[in-house]
Amino acid sequence: MKILIAPDSFKNALSALEVAKSLGKGLLKAMPDAEIRMVPMADGGEGTVESLIDATDGRMVRVKVHDPLMREVESFFGITGDGGTAVIEMAAASGLQLIRAEERDPLITTTYGTGELIRAALDRGCGTILMGIGGSATNDCGTGMAAALGVKFLGADADPVGQGGGAVGQIRRIDLTELDPRIKNTRILVACDVTNPLTGPDGASRVYGPQKGADATMVKKLDGNLAAFAELIRDQLGKDIDRIPGSGAAGGLGAGLIAFLGGELVEGVPAIADRIGLEEEVKWADLVITGEGALDFQTRFGKTPFGVARMARAHNKPVIAVAGTLGEGAETLYDMGFDAILSILEAPITLEEAIEKTPILLEKTGMRIGKLLTIRPLGYPKVS
Amino acid sequence: MKILIAPDSFKNALSALEVAKSLGKGLLKAMPDAEIRMVPMADGGEGTVESLIDATDGRMVRVKVHDPLMREVESFFGITGDGGTAVIEMAAASGLQLIRAEERDPLITTTYGTGELIRAALDRGCGTILMGIGGSATNDCGTGMAAALGVKFLGADADPVGQGGGAVGQIRRIDLTELDPRIKNTRILVACDVTNPLTGPDGASRVYGPQKGADATMVKKLDGNLAAFAELIRDQLGKDIDRIPGSGAAGGLGAGLIAFLGGELVEGVPAIADRIGLEEEVKWADLVITGEGALDFQTRFGKTPFGVARMARAHNKPVIAVAGTLGEGAETLYDMGFDAILSILEAPITLEEAIEKTPILLEKTGMRIGKLLTIRPLGYPKVS
Repeated sequence: MKILIAPDSFKNALSALEVAKSLGKGLLKAMPDAEIRMVPMADGGEGTVESLIDATDGRMVRVKVHDPLMREVESFFGITGDGGTAVIEMAAASGLQLIRAEERDPLITTTYGTGELIRAALDRGCGTILMGIGGSATNDCGTGMAAALGVKFLGADADPVGQGGGAVGQIRRIDLTELDPRIKNTRILVACDVTNPLTGPDGASRVYGPQKGADATMVKKLDGNLAAFAELIRDQLGKDIDRIPGSGAAGGLGAGLIAFLGGELVEGVPAIADRIGLEEEVKWADLVITGEGALDFQTRFGKTPFGVARMARAHNKPVIAVAGTLGEGAETLYDMGFDAILSILEAPITLEEAIEKTPILLEKTGMRIGKLLTIRPLGYPKVS
Repeated sequence: MKILIAPDSFKNALSALEVAKSLGKGLLKAMPDAEIRMVPMADGGEGTVESLIDATDGRMVRVKVHDPLMREVESFFGITGDGGTAVIEMAAASGLQLIRAEERDPLITTTYGTGELIRAALDRGCGTILMGIGGSATNDCGTGMAAALGVKFLGADADPVGQGGGAVGQIRRIDLTELDPRIKNTRILVACDVTNPLTGPDGASRVYGPQKGADATMVKKLDGNLAAFAELIRDQLGKDIDRIPGSGAAGGLGAGLIAFLGGELVEGVPAIADRIGLEEEVKWADLVITGEGALDFQTRFGKTPFGVARMARAHNKPVIAVAGTLGEGAETLYDMGFDAILSILEAPITLEEAIEKTPILLEKTGMRIGKLLTIRPLGYPKVS
């Protein structure tokens, strides 16, 4: 029996590869003859770099960039094993986790560091950049990112404006002439699992501004700045980015990547699966096992287990998903191509305990799955 | 596919029948064509009466008896559907849960009420009495029980002594002449899952005395009383009960049932399975599902899931066990004939929450098992 294990990471507990290894260890206890392959997966969120590196035997690159408040910070991105693709999590340079709660201020936080990561990737000759854009601390429409790559955002006095979502309102002219010329020959894929437009009631400022530190007055100003800026982009660059679903992701970084770098918004899981060669592995397998820290009604919105299940079903392969928590609506996944859904838990415990015990609980779950699949006289006939 | 569901109760949550129904409901969601039979099981512990009644379409009998402190209390026992067997939980008359913590005093607590339950069963013509003897508040070697059925325990003054483990030390003569004559024609099966002898370091007083309210001095006195009483029984009744494994169960009630009523200590699960006709159901089934609130290293010591699994294996039928908690050593059950072991939990929660959600969690677990068993192209070929 050929089993493909292609999970996401379990947040705060294990990387995707570690999840796969623990499951595989348990599976082999119950099915010693099983052939197992592991493909650490991701959806563009936290852990994407690590999964892509693990899956492709790639490497981690550590670079100093500027954090959302323009302080120097150690950051990272990944390069796939073939050297062709750089994998960037914008949060590694411009994420909310890099600043203290009381420092949150989307009027001044910037994506400048994300632009520096892109530049570092270009320096290493990557022809494709795959970027995950969750968890940002910013609302600057990607202007910081673009500035780091040479784009000039000029105010009424023709001088460059400052960093942050507040300064966006002062921009009168966008000058792309000094944009890093390598961008033109680089494919930029933006893994995006939200559909928010740039502005308005569902836009970046209104929906995500408050968690980045914006009060009601600030939200209104930020949203107004983005709306005016979208008009400026339309006028000066001929691109209408305001209503594109996903343009509001990461405080408008989605829009900025489209407008200034020619980026493409893509679904994260298929794009990542493509880099990893997941489809070939699915074709090889008799059974696919995926999983994530939590499975619930949101899983269908672009999360790894859903994408893996979709691919498995396309090839008529059964798929089992495991999770630490089966949350609200998890059972609806049965109607969406999942053959079975299991929690790894086995006693009433706290989330903290569950996180600590995740490796052994995953191993036991792997064993449980193996045992259930090979129950005789009911089960799968053993392949020698 | 024919599935037998034969669980114990989930303590503080659901009766065995309710457990079976919840599992069955979920199974049918995944396997609508499955044939399902339910046999509520028990091991002689709490819930045994309810399971036997549910399994045999029997009836509950409610009677007033005396509690461990000789206060009147509403109690109960069961009669199987065929009317032949009375099922008694000694704790229903003489259990620790009937008295307050500060009332615990094994010098005075008595099994008298248990004797009254036996008498009530005799009154209803039951030829067999199946008794579970867990959870006692007593250490009286069953003297109270026997007294309620006519046995006289006489002191140095030839008058009957009082109730309780203290008075046992005053007994000089055992007079069986007025023992209820129906006892002679009654088979008394004592479901016993401990192997403690009556006295000594592993005896009733030393091991279980403290939880019944005995301090060190009291434990010593109780143990001495039982030792002397065992000698008296040997001398006057010609029965050597002191070292019989299980004679120390329920404060020596095990010994008393042997000595005064001719009772037989039996393994609970096989005895109960016998009353219920479990073996025929196991033969019928393609798959057996059992379970209990918790599965752990103790499960092998006479608990329901272990007994059910043993019978299933004897007929070469696969067996799956479910539990709320998979505790320490639960995985060792894989080496003891269990094909798969599952917890019903699916998120980090407290025990209280788990108990409250047990019905729906069991239903989801039933569905999960059904889904896993029918995974294609791996699984069990559907039987039409």
